[in-house]
Amino acid sequence: MKIIDGNVTSPKGFKASGDHVGLKKVKKDMALITSEVPCVASGCFTTNVVKAAPVLWDMKCCKNKISAIAANSGNANACTGEQGMKDAEEMAGTLAALVGVNAENVLVCSTGVIGVNLPMDTINNGIRQCFPLLGDSFENGQLAAEAIMTTDTVSKTAAAQIEINGKKVTLGGMAKGSGMINPNMATMLCFITTDALISKEMLDKALKECVDDSFNMISVDGDMSTNDTTLVIANGLAENDIIDKADGSFEKFKEALFYICKKLAVNCASDGEGATKLIEANVKGAKNKEDARKIVQSVVSSNLFKAAIFGKDANWGRALCAMGYSGAQFDPYGVTLHFRSENGNILLMDNGVPIVFDEELASHILQAHDIYVDIEMHEGDAGATAWGCDLTYEYVKINGDYRS
Amino acid sequence: MKIIDGNVTSPKGFKASGDHVGLKKVKKDMALITSEVPCVASGCFTTNVVKAAPVLWDMKCCKNKISAIAANSGNANACTGEQGMKDAEEMAGTLAALVGVNAENVLVCSTGVIGVNLPMDTINNGIRQCFPLLGDSFENGQLAAEAIMTTDTVSKTAAAQIEINGKKVTLGGMAKGSGMINPNMATMLCFITTDALISKEMLDKALKECVDDSFNMISVDGDMSTNDTTLVIANGLAENDIIDKADGSFEKFKEALFYICKKLAVNCASDGEGATKLIEANVKGAKNKEDARKIVQSVVSSNLFKAAIFGKDANWGRALCAMGYSGAQFDPYGVTLHFRSENGNILLMDNGVPIVFDEELASHILQAHDIYVDIEMHEGDAGATAWGCDLTYEYVKINGDYRS
Repeated sequence: MKIIDGNVTSPKGFKASGDHVGLKKVKKDMALITSEVPCVASGCFTTNVVKAAPVLWDMKCCKNKISAIAANSGNANACTGEQGMKDAEEMAGTLAALVGVNAENVLVCSTGVIGVNLPMDTINNGIRQCFPLLGDSFENGQLAAEAIMTTDTVSKTAAAQIEINGKKVTLGGMAKGSGMINPNMATMLCFITTDALISKEMLDKALKECVDDSFNMISVDGDMSTNDTTLVIANGLAENDIIDKADGSFEKFKEALFYICKKLAVNCASDGEGATKLIEANVKGAKNKEDARKIVQSVVSSNLFKAAIFGKDANWGRALCAMGYSGAQFDPYGVTLHFRSENGNILLMDNGVPIVFDEELASHILQAHDIYVDIEMHEGDAGATAWGCDLTYEYVKINGDYRS
Repeated sequence: MKIIDGNVTSPKGFKASGDHVGLKKVKKDMALITSEVPCVASGCFTTNVVKAAPVLWDMKCCKNKISAIAANSGNANACTGEQGMKDAEEMAGTLAALVGVNAENVLVCSTGVIGVNLPMDTINNGIRQCFPLLGDSFENGQLAAEAIMTTDTVSKTAAAQIEINGKKVTLGGMAKGSGMINPNMATMLCFITTDALISKEMLDKALKECVDDSFNMISVDGDMSTNDTTLVIANGLAENDIIDKADGSFEKFKEALFYICKKLAVNCASDGEGATKLIEANVKGAKNKEDARKIVQSVVSSNLFKAAIFGKDANWGRALCAMGYSGAQFDPYGVTLHFRSENGNILLMDNGVPIVFDEELASHILQAHDIYVDIEMHEGDAGATAWGCDLTYEYVKINGDYRS
């Protein structure tokens, strides 16, 4: 696999655009992606029982051949009643008419404030404004990535190439994250394009497995949004032999897809609302995979631990405490715990015994941006990794007055 | 039931004291409670698999007759390995020697920093310092309530009287809360004394039922501590006919116990770390009790919603969103949602349809200290209430630098 500097326009046959259409005051707020030929599509969606209208639309239409995606920021079209469903369909229909397909062949995503109906004139005019701007340049992909941002501070893109049967296959992605991010995704929108030729069944399988260990392992604030969506569309223009079984080609494809999902997910955690630090929690020796996942998710989700990391306070007891209420079963007397960063590595608990540690070294380690919590136990052979960020004044500020 | 101005010294035969013994820099940090005759005891404890040493000690000793309780703040004796267990036993033993009973007849609680062994000289000398200060006055009970505080801003006490078979029965309690508070209790310590004559079995039953609808329904930050403990000790000096079955006397007793548990729990939520507001979430018409509890717990635990309430922002979509990821099943199109306070009442969603509301009125309602979120659905007949607080800059500040 070759990592390349790219985005959703990197694979063959995809165009994108992003512009300001008036949903937000100044910033870009509408992104379009189109494929010159119909795509196989797959999606992973929020498990929140309150699902935003565009999520319900995409869940229904993902089985169809997809030719385009429209995504807006500034309004989530969530908790908007029956009108919200009509609006999502109308949004798809507007882009479909321009592309020359049916509404059912277009996916839509929305992110932003909850509980306010979409201003449909702005949406429809916005799509018409962005359509002529579509292009396949790197720059076009970057503009689309900017247009889906809400409180994100940087746009997030990734791309990779692999070779399958001598054919170059490219994958490109973009994501937005920031607040309301928790295991099982969040106000996380992620769009991945690929020119791979792959069956719907294998695309579904690859996406699910990749999302489980990437987007489903990040937490910003423990809130799971009504809008979380990861979409991948594959147009087959790479002309590789079709990937339709779990063979070597599938593994290659999945490796590249996982690279993109993981990079975008970690970028979302690192750019969590108000975050000043990325926290990565690793566990080894857990009883089983499920317990391993619970343990690291609980650590990166603990408000108390997140606030301690913001304060550069080596309060490792809060990490152990969070492991304890994760729902996983383990013997606390078998736990060994290290904090680690580019500045060093420090042992804090050794097989259940707290270590009197060098506070100066601990403080030096916690000055770094990326903080690693390494947990070892003796319950079994399972491991997992989760990512989160610190809890800061800025998080409270952003979310105390989001709508104004 | 008569509500009285009292605390743990209100019931007959109980003494208390609280003083500064050197675990904290300046504030009181050691509380003692003794009964002149041995008590029946009952406890509810954290479900965290990482249980602090004093929790393990109390779980073991709660079946014994109890004569005294020692509680310190400043150090939680949690994540302290085998040494922590020895220290908890030694702490009980020191008080037991003064009282003239065995260590197994004394309960101990600790709260404060995690992962640091108790300074046993300070603990032992502190107990010896506090023992001669024991007294049965109102003031003595207040000093004990102050001595268990950590980041609490006010001490928390409650007391009530009932009559059983013509005998006056009194219950008194004190609690500390503040951070790390979540369903299934938290760094919540609560001590309740009563002169009721009651069997161990019925005391256990009453406490469990009361805690389920009080302490287990409050959340400050979603973190569940290693030390949560609610203890009730009953010395029988009221000389009522023994309560040993679920009859009218039991119901009377439970009503008073619930009043005390609920008042102390709500006080803990209201005084959550950095809190400026109390949030009460009510649901009616949920499918079953379990779903009802999940729904309101999820609302009062949502960082996003809590930050919005801090910002006096009527972002009700975040409440609906939190209901959606609570794990409860319901039809979002059947939900009706109001915000309420002493300043008024406002409808925000009516059977799934978002209402265009008067922002000025909403803002006026959210100026109040106590904010009520009233949820109606049409899934069944179950209801529940949960309490929490807003998420503020101050929470982050307190927890970003707790140990220094």
